Amino acid sequence: MDEAGINEIYAFAIELARKAGRAIVDGSSRRFSSAAGFDHKKNTADLVTETDQAVEALVKREISTRFPDHAFIGEESWAAGEEHALDNQVTWIVDPIDGTTNFVHAFPYTCISIGVVINSVPTIGVVFAPFMDTMYQGCLGKGSFMSSPHHPAPRRLPLVDPTPLDDLRQALVAFEWGSDRRVEVLERKLDCFRKITGDPEGGIAGGKMVQGVRSVGSAALNFCHVASGNLDLYWEIGCWAWDVCAGVVIAQEAGAAVVGSKDHAERATKGDEFNVVTPAVLTGRKYTVIRAIDTDKAKNDQAQKHILNEFYQCITEWDP
Amino acid sequence: MDEAGINEIYAFAIELARKAGRAIVDGSSRRFSSAAGFDHKKNTADLVTETDQAVEALVKREISTRFPDHAFIGEESWAAGEEHALDNQVTWIVDPIDGTTNFVHAFPYTCISIGVVINSVPTIGVVFAPFMDTMYQGCLGKGSFMSSPHHPAPRRLPLVDPTPLDDLRQALVAFEWGSDRRVEVLERKLDCFRKITGDPEGGIAGGKMVQGVRSVGSAALNFCHVASGNLDLYWEIGCWAWDVCAGVVIAQEAGAAVVGSKDHAERATKGDEFNVVTPAVLTGRKYTVIRAIDTDKAKNDQAQKHILNEFYQCITEWDP
Repeated sequence: MDEAGINEIYAFAIELARKAGRAIVDGSSRRFSSAAGFDHKKNTADLVTETDQAVEALVKREISTRFPDHAFIGEESWAAGEEHALDNQVTWIVDPIDGTTNFVHAFPYTCISIGVVINSVPTIGVVFAPFMDTMYQGCLGKGSFMSSPHHPAPRRLPLVDPTPLDDLRQALVAFEWGSDRRVEVLERKLDCFRKITGDPEGGIAGGKMVQGVRSVGSAALNFCHVASGNLDLYWEIGCWAWDVCAGVVIAQEAGAAVVGSKDHAERATKGDEFNVVTPAVLTGRKYTVIRAIDTDKAKNDQAQKHILNEFYQCITEWDP
Repeated sequence: MDEAGINEIYAFAIELARKAGRAIVDGSSRRFSSAAGFDHKKNTADLVTETDQAVEALVKREISTRFPDHAFIGEESWAAGEEHALDNQVTWIVDPIDGTTNFVHAFPYTCISIGVVINSVPTIGVVFAPFMDTMYQGCLGKGSFMSSPHHPAPRRLPLVDPTPLDDLRQALVAFEWGSDRRVEVLERKLDCFRKITGDPEGGIAGGKMVQGVRSVGSAALNFCHVASGNLDLYWEIGCWAWDVCAGVVIAQEAGAAVVGSKDHAERATKGDEFNVVTPAVLTGRKYTVIRAIDTDKAKNDQAQKHILNEFYQCITEWDP
């Protein structure tokens, strides 16, 4: 696809995210002015609201009208069995409401996440958080940007020049509790959390004593926070391509690095294919993203690999 | 103190919070435009910045100029040994920057927290988050309010009418990892986290399977989120009176309930002294705050006590 074609899709995606954002805010107003109930998907920690489905229908309709040849993968469509492969020329990968639990509680970390994969490469990413009126956007080779009421003009990410990150003790890390808290998942997760947070001088063998941990309940916004430089690292097992696709582009364009499973991270940090998000990685449901550490590409790669190797010492994975 | 006197202090505290907020934003700009270093207090997870100290000096100076007879307790003063008792007629309890780790990383959940205790009762609370330009304010008997760029006119809290909360499965809960992660603290914390989050039908005995967990790294803003109704419950061991004093007023005036240690919670939920924050509770470094569940006072008390009793089944405390 030529650059004009990509620009057209990019501009449309931004416009669409704002339109969907208005629908999310409207849905929230209705939610809190009536006693309308919610469907439950699996359990109470994994809610699907009417708004979720309505926003996805809106987005899907707008895209298919404007770009009838493009493929579409959305959370709600997927649940309904409309899985598509990523070998189409252009595939939109959309989470209508990332942070559904937040949405239900009017906790502001809710966003729409719109990613576009072109020729198997995550190429366009737009994440819009309507309750904070904050837009993150990125396009392959064009950088990524953030705009908000405080700074309406898009500012390039990361917001400040990358600072050194010598080890995890300086790191502000994000992870989430997720909705699968059966013993076989939760115990591994707690073991990882213990190693990530524990004080090795206070009796936690192998503890990395990160500076802090944040959990805001939105994978897409965690990626954007790493892109901005507000978080140093975000680790996730169990979320889906539509939660991260847009964030992958925004993060990579801000100098952040994305790897998949622990196996993938080991291969990627040893070989030449570092920070290459293939369709297998994108749909692999295991992700780590680390912020830009240096403006020099080679030094940045090296510094990110160093921290990733340290981080993965904490991690024992499970299959989501 | 008469109402005019209280109103004067309240108006001054709001003005002061905005002024301090500007100093925080200025400090952040300097931070990210130079390689200025930080002092380390205890360890890397517990940073004190120059800005922290400068903002406290500013706030202390302004208060002592306007109200020379009032006592002052601030995080930095306390560290320097300037502890004051709460039996003074008027005591200001101030955290110049709550969420210091966030501040260091330019993560937006940073605020100044200004509480005023009058005749041993938390009476005025002002929490201002300058990077989000969001103000929370409350005064005993006058309600609590929030204003932000989206809604510049103060809106009464909670933002929506209280909805039922039958059990913890519906609850969005906040806790934090803190900076003390020695084995004797972290293992108890992890045990509590396991019970709060675990799926009892998935093999976690006694698990409450809360809907979600959030950690934003600011005790004061967690209190405000509970006051707003965006969080259902926040539990903390280890933070200080200046982290919570303002939040206590804002939360209580929004119909939320505050208890201290597990012992205190048991006594409070059985007796008549429910939701009474004595100086001992305020300085006790153990807190749980739960949102308004009903507009009827008696029903609200009953519903809050019910959830608190369920919640404390998860908790084994430690001494911070």
